[in-house]
Amino acid sequence: METENILIKDAQILDAHGQRKGSVLIENDKIKEISPSISPEGVNKVINAEGKLLIPGFVNTHTHLSMTLFRGIADDLKLEKWLNDYIWPLEAHLNGEYCYAGALLGCVEMIKSGTTTFNDMYFYMDHVAEAVKESGLRAVISHGMIDFGDEKKRKAEIKESKRIIRKCHGMADGRIKVALGPHSPYTCSRQLLDEVRSLADKYGLLIHIHVAETEDEVRQVKDKYGERPFIYLDEIGFLGEDVIAAHAVWLSSSEIHILRSRGVKLSHNPASNMKLASGVSPVEELINMGVCVSLGTDGAASNNNLDMLEEMKIAALLQKIKKMDPTALDAGTVFKMATINGAAALGMADEIGTIEVDKKADLALINTRRSSITPWRNPTSHLVYAASGCDVESVICNGEILMENDKLESLDEKYVIELAENAAEELISKA
Amino acid sequence: METENILIKDAQILDAHGQRKGSVLIENDKIKEISPSISPEGVNKVINAEGKLLIPGFVNTHTHLSMTLFRGIADDLKLEKWLNDYIWPLEAHLNGEYCYAGALLGCVEMIKSGTTTFNDMYFYMDHVAEAVKESGLRAVISHGMIDFGDEKKRKAEIKESKRIIRKCHGMADGRIKVALGPHSPYTCSRQLLDEVRSLADKYGLLIHIHVAETEDEVRQVKDKYGERPFIYLDEIGFLGEDVIAAHAVWLSSSEIHILRSRGVKLSHNPASNMKLASGVSPVEELINMGVCVSLGTDGAASNNNLDMLEEMKIAALLQKIKKMDPTALDAGTVFKMATINGAAALGMADEIGTIEVDKKADLALINTRRSSITPWRNPTSHLVYAASGCDVESVICNGEILMENDKLESLDEKYVIELAENAAEELISKA
Repeated sequence: METENILIKDAQILDAHGQRKGSVLIENDKIKEISPSISPEGVNKVINAEGKLLIPGFVNTHTHLSMTLFRGIADDLKLEKWLNDYIWPLEAHLNGEYCYAGALLGCVEMIKSGTTTFNDMYFYMDHVAEAVKESGLRAVISHGMIDFGDEKKRKAEIKESKRIIRKCHGMADGRIKVALGPHSPYTCSRQLLDEVRSLADKYGLLIHIHVAETEDEVRQVKDKYGERPFIYLDEIGFLGEDVIAAHAVWLSSSEIHILRSRGVKLSHNPASNMKLASGVSPVEELINMGVCVSLGTDGAASNNNLDMLEEMKIAALLQKIKKMDPTALDAGTVFKMATINGAAALGMADEIGTIEVDKKADLALINTRRSSITPWRNPTSHLVYAASGCDVESVICNGEILMENDKLESLDEKYVIELAENAAEELISKA
Repeated sequence: METENILIKDAQILDAHGQRKGSVLIENDKIKEISPSISPEGVNKVINAEGKLLIPGFVNTHTHLSMTLFRGIADDLKLEKWLNDYIWPLEAHLNGEYCYAGALLGCVEMIKSGTTTFNDMYFYMDHVAEAVKESGLRAVISHGMIDFGDEKKRKAEIKESKRIIRKCHGMADGRIKVALGPHSPYTCSRQLLDEVRSLADKYGLLIHIHVAETEDEVRQVKDKYGERPFIYLDEIGFLGEDVIAAHAVWLSSSEIHILRSRGVKLSHNPASNMKLASGVSPVEELINMGVCVSLGTDGAASNNNLDMLEEMKIAALLQKIKKMDPTALDAGTVFKMATINGAAALGMADEIGTIEVDKKADLALINTRRSSITPWRNPTSHLVYAASGCDVESVICNGEILMENDKLESLDEKYVIELAENAAEELISKA
């Protein structure tokens, strides 16, 4: 393979390590050099980043990408009604084609708002993988497993997970990894969780699960197993450093200690938790205790977008109002949650999440000359509190340019919008 | 004057009255006709709105526009530190030139995110008026008055308010109106509030005031006057239908009854209330009681943008989590708050806030073919939960095109960004 290189010239660089000026040389999929000045000689492609901010691509650690098809279909509803009357009837009619279309739409949305890696759990994941492959993004994907104690269902779910592992793990030059996706401790049997733990150990895979999203879930788990969700999961030997738990809203202090001692990673989903009125995760306490908390948008049916910049703002505002303390969850901490903590949550802290030599070239460029982020003084503050996804101008993932100057390179936006529009139309007419 | 007309052809129209298809003919500053089909013959300008959503321009009912210069300068701080160490030292060095630059920047930001009318309280308001005039926007402006019981200060504040009234009320073909702006019941003396009430009655002007923003303010007012803020204001005969009170976070049920019976209008500012950890206004209760609650962003130092689409989402999410009820403050209600309720709050419900014949042509066009609002099914949901300011493509105010296809017509964006950048630079170096 011929060496492909890209020089990002004279950028303002910002990541969890702080702020500096410099140029970044990308060779193939990796960052080769970061210096105050790099000669453009012999470089295939030079991007002039004067007046632009270069940040690590965002890491969205909890998504259900194909649910973009359900965007705006069911809002302002109680969780039960939302699930029973809208989401589940629609999901009953899903197929690979629809999931592909929805995933492709989600990929467009994520590229346009600067996300380069995401952690997705849903159905027809080989079709989702196809969309991820085409998009150029990096993803951890998992087949969402629910058995409700039914042995036949459990076997089918494990079988499907194994199929996805075989088919998709390591796909697209390693951009796609497969994880195990047991839905939650209240929808999965003890046996299913045990099998997941064995498979994770055997194949070295991550486990992506929803835990303690609602107070009702905690009640259900306590009724069934006599303990709160994370205590129960710990007792059955399920927890570990390879577990990323989404939501984690309702936590006792014993559970927070367990999360820390087991090295469990969390994905905080503030917009979804507010929209569905699930509750407010004790993010400040978790971070102060040393738990790795990352950030996720959740699916578009409960957010309703995949904009990590908006999610950062909502995360900061929500902790401040919860604690009635404006110093809670400052901009710098939220920016870390959305970048390096996300990388750490997915076991990729050595590969992505900051801008460093030998890391993957997963980057986003922000145009600093926009009215809503003027005057340009405090980049971290502006990213968290003032900017939105549309301020992202160019995106590189794995050394490939996915968007340049607001124009998508890897996908045809118009085509994807039409494809998704038609898929949603068909799907809704069936349900 | 020659008749200027604009035809907006084949739009999807959405306002507080609901959704319909149609074309809108604008003649001079007003909407002349709304029909399923209008001939473009003899029309000066035709805008093809096929595949676009036409909505009333947003009404932002609480801003301090020139504070855009302070964006990102002081975040994640306690209110006292924020004021004493950052905002007040900077404000001490303000002048007309800086306020003009900041106001112009705010105008650019508002046009780009679909706001056509705003209610602004700050200093050097004749300079702010100049910016509003150039921008083409509609505004109510008021000189912010604080006397802390000092008679000399009070006289100077009233004098400045009168100067602004004489100089700016009715400016720019009536697009600019002047209101009275006593800062709040804890920073203004009883005498100042009495004078404001007399002037408002005498000249028929609105009163724009901050009330009950923080719990500490309620304590201060109770300590000084023996009553909670709105009860005190009612007892001195200050309240009326011409009063628009910003924040209104800390309210007793007696105060809610007073607000209703006096016809006081409110501006809810959820992002600012969350960022400064002021508290959560009981918006659902207020609306259920029949109080007119509109929406405002507050200044950019405590938000940190002026995007009414983002503000709508935050408003809805905040009520849901406060009440632990996902049905609280549904999308339709929030959309009304940001449009017709804003118009009503400013005494302009007959002129703006909906799309109707004989109302002013204050309109925004949204491109519905964007990934983050695909599939395009429920426009109200998409506006509130999925869209952001940058989805606004064209804006008309008072029958003038201020932005078309993302390009500003009334202002030179690049020039304004430079002007504001330099003003902020100078101002900060002085403080």
